[in-house]
Amino acid sequence: MTSRPSRTRRAGGRAARVAMREDTRDETRQAVRAGLEGGTYNPLSDHDLRSIHKAALDILADVGIGDATDEVIELATEQGCFVNAHGRLSFPHALVEDLLTKAAREYTVYSRDPMHADVHVGGNKVNYCTSGEAVSILDYESRSYRPSTLIDLYDTARVVDALPNIHQFGQTVVPTELVDLYEHDINVVYAVLAGTTKPVEHTFNTVESIPHALEMYAMVAGGEDKFRERPFVSFGGCPIVSPLRFAQENLDVLVTTSRLGLVNDIAIAPQSGATAPSFLAGALVQVTAEALACLCVVNMVNPGCPMSFAAWPFAVDLRTGAFAGGSAEVAVSMAAVAQIGRFYDLPTTVAASMSDAKMPDAQMGYEKGITSVVAGLAGANRVLESAGMMASLMGCSFEALVIDNDMLGMAQRVVRGIEVSDETLSVDTIKAAVLGDGHYLGAGDTLKSMKTEYVYPATADRSSQQVWIAEGAKTMDERAHEAAGKLLAEHFVNAIPADVDKAIRERFPIKLPKNRMAPRVA
Amino acid sequence: MTSRPSRTRRAGGRAARVAMREDTRDETRQAVRAGLEGGTYNPLSDHDLRSIHKAALDILADVGIGDATDEVIELATEQGCFVNAHGRLSFPHALVEDLLTKAAREYTVYSRDPMHADVHVGGNKVNYCTSGEAVSILDYESRSYRPSTLIDLYDTARVVDALPNIHQFGQTVVPTELVDLYEHDINVVYAVLAGTTKPVEHTFNTVESIPHALEMYAMVAGGEDKFRERPFVSFGGCPIVSPLRFAQENLDVLVTTSRLGLVNDIAIAPQSGATAPSFLAGALVQVTAEALACLCVVNMVNPGCPMSFAAWPFAVDLRTGAFAGGSAEVAVSMAAVAQIGRFYDLPTTVAASMSDAKMPDAQMGYEKGITSVVAGLAGANRVLESAGMMASLMGCSFEALVIDNDMLGMAQRVVRGIEVSDETLSVDTIKAAVLGDGHYLGAGDTLKSMKTEYVYPATADRSSQQVWIAEGAKTMDERAHEAAGKLLAEHFVNAIPADVDKAIRERFPIKLPKNRMAPRVA
Repeated sequence: MTSRPSRTRRAGGRAARVAMREDTRDETRQAVRAGLEGGTYNPLSDHDLRSIHKAALDILADVGIGDATDEVIELATEQGCFVNAHGRLSFPHALVEDLLTKAAREYTVYSRDPMHADVHVGGNKVNYCTSGEAVSILDYESRSYRPSTLIDLYDTARVVDALPNIHQFGQTVVPTELVDLYEHDINVVYAVLAGTTKPVEHTFNTVESIPHALEMYAMVAGGEDKFRERPFVSFGGCPIVSPLRFAQENLDVLVTTSRLGLVNDIAIAPQSGATAPSFLAGALVQVTAEALACLCVVNMVNPGCPMSFAAWPFAVDLRTGAFAGGSAEVAVSMAAVAQIGRFYDLPTTVAASMSDAKMPDAQMGYEKGITSVVAGLAGANRVLESAGMMASLMGCSFEALVIDNDMLGMAQRVVRGIEVSDETLSVDTIKAAVLGDGHYLGAGDTLKSMKTEYVYPATADRSSQQVWIAEGAKTMDERAHEAAGKLLAEHFVNAIPADVDKAIRERFPIKLPKNRMAPRVA
Repeated sequence: MTSRPSRTRRAGGRAARVAMREDTRDETRQAVRAGLEGGTYNPLSDHDLRSIHKAALDILADVGIGDATDEVIELATEQGCFVNAHGRLSFPHALVEDLLTKAAREYTVYSRDPMHADVHVGGNKVNYCTSGEAVSILDYESRSYRPSTLIDLYDTARVVDALPNIHQFGQTVVPTELVDLYEHDINVVYAVLAGTTKPVEHTFNTVESIPHALEMYAMVAGGEDKFRERPFVSFGGCPIVSPLRFAQENLDVLVTTSRLGLVNDIAIAPQSGATAPSFLAGALVQVTAEALACLCVVNMVNPGCPMSFAAWPFAVDLRTGAFAGGSAEVAVSMAAVAQIGRFYDLPTTVAASMSDAKMPDAQMGYEKGITSVVAGLAGANRVLESAGMMASLMGCSFEALVIDNDMLGMAQRVVRGIEVSDETLSVDTIKAAVLGDGHYLGAGDTLKSMKTEYVYPATADRSSQQVWIAEGAKTMDERAHEAAGKLLAEHFVNAIPADVDKAIRERFPIKLPKNRMAPRVA
């Protein structure tokens, strides 16, 4: 990934600083970065892939999708779909295959500042993103869960802005205090854009918000043409109610954003054993059918309009019916989805790192670590829900964001793999060390590869037991609490220039208090 | 893996109980088990593998291995090695290739009770084992580190005995209070055999202990022939001092155990940037050369004697020189080793799950989770250090053992992958659900697959936030502390029958107090 010249309005003072840094760094040689190549892990055989594909197409043709809107039925039947005996919209094999050839193979969600990478989605590229729209937050002060607010959305955005191993800020929490759908949507747009200049993602509650949101994007970008040239947002939404029905309100959003040529960043999330078959293979069949149905709609509305193949086969704990987002079954199923998406040559998003733990503890660590690295190795293009998400997607945590940044750095370093070349094979270095000093400390290669081969955690501890005790014997959670507190107190991005901010506040009912958008004066 | 009839002396009462359970379970249909097939993750290309192989052979021929014993030099030069100008033992390409054809392709470490699985090592089979020989333990009562003792070794053995996702008990800790090498070794043998009937592993400090240990194994097995028929122990040791020198004492052990036809379960553990090149590919070259040198020794002594290809490319944090066992660089390098071992068709062991964290916290969770699942997906046959190990291999923790059991269950479920068949594709089930109830709750397939498709954690929490609060808002560490306390108080295995125990105590200087080998009377 090469760095691009800034096209944002606010790149003034920072641009110079960044340019200076650019001189001395070659991004492709950093240990980890957005867009590393995954795909070295493939849970399914070619035969498995063809079997799942065929079964999904049979389901789309024989069972179809229920609850289509009149608009979609009219559009789809014109192109070859039909309403079957059960009143459901059926998709013939040939039509699906044809629309698959028209689908977008890749898309980019742009950063608004060259100090952050753009998110290129397609091929085997791997990017880690927040998202999840939790309804509660682990309060920083009380360390207990409470309903999330608009300020929490903004605060998580600016914390993520400072965490380099998270590549896109997707909507972490819902501002539960905003009940008016339009006010809700427009304030979400503002909060995510005000909190970070990284690529962003959010959802709409109502299709009526979309033109207003587009207006705000254009104001922030410095013109609609500038936004269209480098769109910095992708749009979530769940157009399917599993099993195999459309969600009409979200389907309207999907049709509208497709007409506008925006990035459709949907999520289709059946739960094995509840709203999908309990056999993992069966859940893959159903979710593939559901995702392909949405892909058909998008490409019937606007051929080639970007859409993530966002089949998210979730699972419940069959003992209790509890959502088990941090489970092995979800991890391996999401990896399979990345492979199915690659089989179709579609840009993929999956969900990983959704711990069922309530606190940033060992369970959170291993559930997030396993699910995140598996998704990346499988080559999922965008790994959503990948930072901060706790309590089975019901909560978000500032400490978890900080911890997950280190975890994701580790996952990315694994995904990157091992470069084998005459230089890295080190034969001459080995000879020199063995026949010379007997070690590699201070060797030229060691200094040279220190930053290119190794990722260094910011908050994790590698000290000796003695040093750890001397420094207060803190757990990762305690260190992350301190680091998050520092970011909350100090890291304000000013991601929207003052004049634009003024214009936005005059035009829209912005609820985020300006005095929460700068460090408190002591 | 089919269950085998018991051949142990002590299988009386338990055998009946186990037989009853066997009637109702089909082990191959359990969600996870020992010996699942890995190998779906391959970090290296075929070209990478050949490049590393060629470079390793060049190093063995051109640089060779220093500090060989006279015995090994004599044996090796007879077979085609030569001492080079630097006084180092050189291995010509053709000799290495020839000895590789003679090497054992697999071995089995047996359980002493049919309720535990045997550990089959070879192909793509994946087994998770403890090991590590830490010198300190996170004390259960004080929750701070103190030097480990013989009782800790025994206690960790019986805790592991109760944790189903750990397949072999390797020596977790060193009895630091035993300074006499022979007393030390013989008491280690006794403690591991007394604590669990699972397959075991330990090391010898001195070659002189080996015949005594064999005597004890024979007593426990009910005769030397019975031990030879189903050996239940593999032998650790580090015959290499990196870079590229033999460790003479351990080399003597390797030669002796090879002569005896025992399972050589060595570990070769250079550290990138200190005792191996800092480029990961270069470290793989060196450690492959070092492992092949040991393989040559074993197969020159006794062709076909089992030896693990146990190349363990460790890493240090190059900022400080601290050991970074929980790092991404180690994770991806161990995965590469599993692939190199498969390239040679050798049984592999790797090290994973060695956290650098000091407490069972989120860092421990993600470091262990990522490294463990990556090793399994790569198809490492035995994943050592995989439970309990903390503080960069300096410490072991009872709570970590309990947590890691859940974590390893999750990793194993990921490794198992997704079975695709006409049944699991669930096309008819989907049709019936969609056109019927609209969900899968209570469906026949759901009940049927509940135990075969899903792994259920024992200590991890999946409850709602409300239930979690009502149950005391405990962290994973707190729940694991309770679970470990219960096992420590209650789980005594009596793995050595009373008459054999009496004979062993008469014959050997056993230090483990008998009153520590049963529940305390209140």
